[in-house]
Amino acid sequence: MTSDNRIITLITDFGTKDGYVGAMKGMLLSINPRATIVDITHQIEPQNILQAAYVLKITWQYYPEGTIHLIVVDPGVGTDRKAVILETPIALFVAPDNGSLNYVIKDMTQAVTITNPRYWADSVSSTFHGRDIFAPVAAHLSLNVPITEFGERITSLVQLPGSHPIFKKDGCIIGHVIHIDRFGNLITNVKRSDLPADATFKIKEHSIQQLSSTYAKSDGLLALIGSDDHLEVSLRNGNAAKHLGANCGETVEITRPEHEPT
Amino acid sequence: MTSDNRIITLITDFGTKDGYVGAMKGMLLSINPRATIVDITHQIEPQNILQAAYVLKITWQYYPEGTIHLIVVDPGVGTDRKAVILETPIALFVAPDNGSLNYVIKDMTQAVTITNPRYWADSVSSTFHGRDIFAPVAAHLSLNVPITEFGERITSLVQLPGSHPIFKKDGCIIGHVIHIDRFGNLITNVKRSDLPADATFKIKEHSIQQLSSTYAKSDGLLALIGSDDHLEVSLRNGNAAKHLGANCGETVEITRPEHEPT
Amino acid sequence: MTSDNRIITLITDFGTKDGYVGAMKGMLLSINPRATIVDITHQIEPQNILQAAYVLKITWQYYPEGTIHLIVVDPGVGTDRKAVILETPIALFVAPDNGSLNYVIKDMTQAVTITNPRYWADSVSSTFHGRDIFAPVAAHLSLNVPITEFGERITSLVQLPGSHPIFKKDGCIIGHVIHIDRFGNLITNVKRSDLPADATFKIKEHSIQQLSSTYAKSDGLLALIGSDDHLEVSLRNGNAAKHLGANCGETVEITRPEHEPT
Repeated sequence: MTSDNRIITLITDFGTKDGYVGAMKGMLLSINPRATIVDITHQIEPQNILQAAYVLKITWQYYPEGTIHLIVVDPGVGTDRKAVILETPIALFVAPDNGSLNYVIKDMTQAVTITNPRYWADSVSSTFHGRDIFAPVAAHLSLNVPITEFGERITSLVQLPGSHPIFKKDGCIIGHVIHIDRFGNLITNVKRSDLPADATFKIKEHSIQQLSSTYAKSDGLLALIGSDDHLEVSLRNGNAAKHLGANCGETVEITRPEHEPT
Repeated sequence: MTSDNRIITLITDFGTKDGYVGAMKGMLLSINPRATIVDITHQIEPQNILQAAYVLKITWQYYPEGTIHLIVVDPGVGTDRKAVILETPIALFVAPDNGSLNYVIKDMTQAVTITNPRYWADSVSSTFHGRDIFAPVAAHLSLNVPITEFGERITSLVQLPGSHPIFKKDGCIIGHVIHIDRFGNLITNVKRSDLPADATFKIKEHSIQQLSSTYAKSDGLLALIGSDDHLEVSLRNGNAAKHLGANCGETVEITRPEHEPT
Repeated sequence: MTSDNRIITLITDFGTKDGYVGAMKGMLLSINPRATIVDITHQIEPQNILQAAYVLKITWQYYPEGTIHLIVVDPGVGTDRKAVILETPIALFVAPDNGSLNYVIKDMTQAVTITNPRYWADSVSSTFHGRDIFAPVAAHLSLNVPITEFGERITSLVQLPGSHPIFKKDGCIIGHVIHIDRFGNLITNVKRSDLPADATFKIKEHSIQQLSSTYAKSDGLLALIGSDDHLEVSLRNGNAAKHLGANCGETVEITRPEHEPT
């Protein structure tokens, strides 16, 4: 792989029916025609930053060293929210500083705010920084411009509330649904390592007595650890989200039998 | 970029759940495996030519010189509508001659009808010229076959009714919604330069007293100039299209206060 | 095209709103950054193997020699269903052995089960073999690892019930809808060559008296041979599936006038 033939992945809430993503890709390819653009998803729920952060978390680690990840879920566009580049030992991330990078901050080696207009589009709209700032910056990064060229170093980024479960004194854990996948699986912010042995689960008046090991081996509503090590609630041969009428944000209570709330 | 490593973008109404786009991409790559294929969108409303023309208008200008844009929204497939290649100083466009290229005609340097079967698939179906004619033609263009090889020169192309607003004698402007984006923003055929100072807006019995500058700074229903210089009607933190029950084609009346209709 | 710059196409039921496809693409590109990844579709109805087999059937033949097709519609993930590589004279196919490859088995030159963990991810989840087994195997195939490295040869693969129509003794043919496209066209498992002259068609109490030649030339409900040589039922300027309330699996009865059932 020659040095400018780098991968740029895209996570946005722009959908695929408009010209927004097409304009961003054009901007990327005009600056670096040799970049390899990979769509991760453009179907993040409009303005759902936590969902974007989660999808990034479960995908970026599979990409080769040097990959640039561009995340544009940007409800604050046109306000004074910052734009940032974050570097880890194996990847670069370009995003508004709104919590999108919540799960990669722990691997941060350095970060800058994006303030140098030299690497932006000639004219910048007030509503579409994805095209006018973020895409040009990602493209210039793929041409190996050093990240300190884009703006001043910063040492902290916005973290998201709700990205981790709440551990209560009585041993009970309050988790939340952070993503609902195509199959209606309710994916929570609770990880395998958070769970006590013999945990039982409660969501919307439904109790689940134990963890299952695969989608296929249980009946009805089930709790299992998904392919990304997060607790999820599923329905065998069905759509758990529709069945329960559950949305992002829904609470899952996790208890050990001896601590079950009364 | 070597000379056959060219970008081919796709705008269609084929959706992404069928094999139609996959067959077109196969045809493109069989003829030129080095082409870079970029999906702009396949979610144009079935047979909505004006929407395809608009999405092309707001994306093609961001692509590098030499890009080939393939637009297949083709309600007339199997009839005697023409197929065309249009050239501008920086890009090539391949499409049915049905108005899809409405907004790029002004930049045309030359155009031909596609009549030479040498550059088509071996057998041509009556229902899928995207795969059998348009994709092979675009792929051969990307291999630098001169456009005059594909057919006879023509000097005029089909223009679309409804692509520009109506300017009435009393100063009132009648615009129409030509695209509804993922966020429910109603994008009209009225451009920034069409608007009088102090314009007020009326859509479906709702009045909007002035232009706003960003999505975030106003309450309720608002009118603003979007990132592509078109007037759009939006709803702060909501979906204007659903809120108003508005579809493509909906009228927006623009008046100056002194000309307000009574 | 250098030997590792190969095309890998994707057909899955993972949708495009989650991180599943993005993780698979990362896995592919980490192993072979020079692969060209082409999305055919990720919108196969969840677990609809016959639909995946059909979309593969109508697309793979358009791709250049050496293309690798990866099909992951895998209701049996985590059970003991086999995973396979199938080779034909011009392409390679990687999929669960569940009927996805039904229509390419006839062109098979050799096949193997995927059993050698050397070519899998370091750790394999029980719910996401697309990322942990199928993608790494496809990527290694694109690096020209011989297929016999991946596991033992096999001589037969699972075939799908319902992939061919039923030919009754009285000359009547019972076909089934195997795919519904974006436009609501009902595509059946009946091919042009299956049809008698003067066939008439019956679907959900509606009779269609003859084949039409294009979408545009008939009124109301019509039967025609689509661009892939399959019989389909369409509605002029409308959505046949919605109009008829028909789903995948719906029956189409084909008779010759003299054999019409009473």
